[in-house]
Amino acid sequence: MRVTVWNEFRHERANPAVAAIYPAGIHAAIAQALRAAGVEDVRTATLDEPAQGLPPEILARTDVLVWWGHQHHDEVGDDLARAICDRVHGGMGLVVLHSGHFSKPFRRLMGTPCTVRWRADGELERIWVVAPSHPVAAAVPAYFELAREEMYCEPFEVPEPDELVFISWFKGGEVFRSGCAYRRGRGRIFYFRPGHETFPTYHDATVQRVIVNAARWVAPATVTAEPFVNLRVDPVEPL
Amino acid sequence: MRVTVWNEFRHERANPAVAAIYPAGIHAAIAQALRAAGVEDVRTATLDEPAQGLPPEILARTDVLVWWGHQHHDEVGDDLARAICDRVHGGMGLVVLHSGHFSKPFRRLMGTPCTVRWRADGELERIWVVAPSHPVAAAVPAYFELAREEMYCEPFEVPEPDELVFISWFKGGEVFRSGCAYRRGRGRIFYFRPGHETFPTYHDATVQRVIVNAARWVAPATVTAEPFVNLRVDPVEPL
Amino acid sequence: MRVTVWNEFRHERANPAVAAIYPAGIHAAIAQALRAAGVEDVRTATLDEPAQGLPPEILARTDVLVWWGHQHHDEVGDDLARAICDRVHGGMGLVVLHSGHFSKPFRRLMGTPCTVRWRADGELERIWVVAPSHPVAAAVPAYFELAREEMYCEPFEVPEPDELVFISWFKGGEVFRSGCAYRRGRGRIFYFRPGHETFPTYHDATVQRVIVNAARWVAPATVTAEPFVNLRVDPVEPL
Amino acid sequence: MRVTVWNEFRHERANPAVAAIYPAGIHAAIAQALRAAGVEDVRTATLDEPAQGLPPEILARTDVLVWWGHQHHDEVGDDLARAICDRVHGGMGLVVLHSGHFSKPFRRLMGTPCTVRWRADGELERIWVVAPSHPVAAAVPAYFELAREEMYCEPFEVPEPDELVFISWFKGGEVFRSGCAYRRGRGRIFYFRPGHETFPTYHDATVQRVIVNAARWVAPATVTAEPFVNLRVDPVEPL
Repeated sequence: MRVTVWNEFRHERANPAVAAIYPAGIHAAIAQALRAAGVEDVRTATLDEPAQGLPPEILARTDVLVWWGHQHHDEVGDDLARAICDRVHGGMGLVVLHSGHFSKPFRRLMGTPCTVRWRADGELERIWVVAPSHPVAAAVPAYFELAREEMYCEPFEVPEPDELVFISWFKGGEVFRSGCAYRRGRGRIFYFRPGHETFPTYHDATVQRVIVNAARWVAPATVTAEPFVNLRVDPVEPL
Repeated sequence: MRVTVWNEFRHERANPAVAAIYPAGIHAAIAQALRAAGVEDVRTATLDEPAQGLPPEILARTDVLVWWGHQHHDEVGDDLARAICDRVHGGMGLVVLHSGHFSKPFRRLMGTPCTVRWRADGELERIWVVAPSHPVAAAVPAYFELAREEMYCEPFEVPEPDELVFISWFKGGEVFRSGCAYRRGRGRIFYFRPGHETFPTYHDATVQRVIVNAARWVAPATVTAEPFVNLRVDPVEPL
Repeated sequence: MRVTVWNEFRHERANPAVAAIYPAGIHAAIAQALRAAGVEDVRTATLDEPAQGLPPEILARTDVLVWWGHQHHDEVGDDLARAICDRVHGGMGLVVLHSGHFSKPFRRLMGTPCTVRWRADGELERIWVVAPSHPVAAAVPAYFELAREEMYCEPFEVPEPDELVFISWFKGGEVFRSGCAYRRGRGRIFYFRPGHETFPTYHDATVQRVIVNAARWVAPATVTAEPFVNLRVDPVEPL
Repeated sequence: MRVTVWNEFRHERANPAVAAIYPAGIHAAIAQALRAAGVEDVRTATLDEPAQGLPPEILARTDVLVWWGHQHHDEVGDDLARAICDRVHGGMGLVVLHSGHFSKPFRRLMGTPCTVRWRADGELERIWVVAPSHPVAAAVPAYFELAREEMYCEPFEVPEPDELVFISWFKGGEVFRSGCAYRRGRGRIFYFRPGHETFPTYHDATVQRVIVNAARWVAPATVTAEPFVNLRVDPVEPL
């Protein structure tokens, strides 16, 4: 399982409060959690690197892509977004985190607006497990809490998840489908809600466990690079 | 659309506090709401009536069955439970309310334990619409509140709903999938959570609207009484 | 229910064999079937009309869009494709026919390659009803046949349908999920497979019934023109 | 992964033609295929053994149950059927083969009639892969054929599968959803259609591969023996 953790990596460099939480970037914190869980082949990629961090040769050796983006979704090239979706269609797993709900790859793969209602007041989020036997919920207790998080609330404008794994309760009175599993083409996609940059969410042990579980769940047996085409075929039975 | 509202109708006769809220029974309150919404053919049925309120001729003229039961699920005859499921398979719509999650017909139709976690402390429930365009959510605001309700919390041990329409937020910190739509056989089923007998939930205008919407959504074009059998058929093409 | 039937309308003008079957175009045949079934407000639109037949004012008054396209998908403007998807998100129903599986609007809404395997040898197609109580299958027999059709075969690279209504059997030995129902945003989508331009499929009474059923099933209660945005909201409960 | 292969084991003893194909019983053929694929802990159980082959201590050490039954479904005790379903709810995987579609455990878990149309004329069945990346389809070609099989045809009266993996084409002109994946409670269920007792289906290498794949796919991380109950819980937040 070869994992690439992609991060916009702008907040951490522009905002000292974010840098204080994630001095090496959100991607580094997530990559470290994956490695600590025994995932050996983990690399990171960021928006301001050449080819926006994902040149073809890197994408071609990525089995699982973890994505964090927020304010600069539009800067991600359309060609890159398309290449990512193509690779998901071919089998690559995709773990989309937090504000990545509005990223180009996720919106293209969902086919819906993917909008949410939100409030970044740093309130309590309590995440309930709805599907306790789902692999992404392995070793996750009935619920876990994040003392300070951004709030997202319904309606989350996505297709009905193939499997709904988590639902969030927010102190301010709202709910959200926080763990959504999809199959698209040959690939699997898991959306996981928490992770606003101004809170230490990705240092939380249970959040890390969910991300590791999700990476393992979306990991494919194989990824095909063959393009999907409409193909003429001969009859099997005589006509 | 011929609707039968079935109620256990024991609490109202045994508990003066319940009788004060529903003097003619929960079934009467729901039937009245349906009639007020323009549903013309509405009858009621209760557990202590002959044939437990649902003799074959009544079931046979029921297009939509609304079900409220709580502490006496086991008294409902297995033959009646089976007949109800058979009719749902043939197309009858079924609206299951609140503690009806543990009724024989619902459990048989789901094939899962249908258990919940609960607390009847009369706390605030806020019900969020997750699928705003679903017919059951028609004219329902983004959320609505019930000042005092029993709490149900996840995991709700049901199959993944075909469509999830409502999620509840509870003051005490829990969440629940409160509006779940299913198709089983030719019939449609809608589970709607609120309605503990000691609270005036079925007098709430929005709750009534949801129940009316649900009755209309589960209503079939036709119901077949033909039994489902394994049937030998001749080939269409020459063998 | 205001229906617009969109057609590429090139084959009929370029190929005398197609013109012989659909002298006024495929769109005209479908529109006539809808009108004959009692749908009053039906208009047609074609690729070579101004604004490719769908200027904003027409799209804004379309509740149900029926789409037939084949060899010129790429000529449909990206802005138009986006506007169609936006309107589906807002509630507009979409009936996608045959080779429309590879149209821009359908592919964007699905988020997957939408490719098929195919053979246009004019063989027998037998379409089986898998979901007899689905409204799109109303008054459709257990199966119906088209003596000569193009073959499409699996894998059909679409997301798992919310409801699978038809499966096709082909003389040459293949199968295909020929009737696929989806909900995306506020809108409903129905994909219906038959309809190669060189065969008189849209003159078939059962095919017409399915299209009429599908148009009725995808028809929305309302369509919202409000754009979907990420919206900041205040807390409901005190923080 | 501890697998138990259950077989009615009556045809093989009563019908010499069946005995000629499966001298040691269908269960023995399937168990051998599992062992040959590297599954180490495989046992068999049959209807006429004590406790119908599944005393509590055996069921309690079964992670995956493979089920073949046909004409004596009704002899399986209700208590055993209930115990099997309880264990599926707790996480046990269940692979249901062929005429097992009408077994007590499968029907209880589905909640629907589970009926089919059929014809045992020994015609060609061609099984197409609809979901090529599903683990149950691993190393299965685009389609595979069984020269002589019983035919099952739609409508198959089951809930919409969570994932549809295979569709069958029959020489006589019918189609069938031959590979259906479900999650129910903590457990996974896979229904696989082929396997009439008078044909050597379970000696086919691809059929064996699918059964092995299915056993692995339904295998749980853990199975809980705790009964599912409605449980009163205290609030998390102060009321």
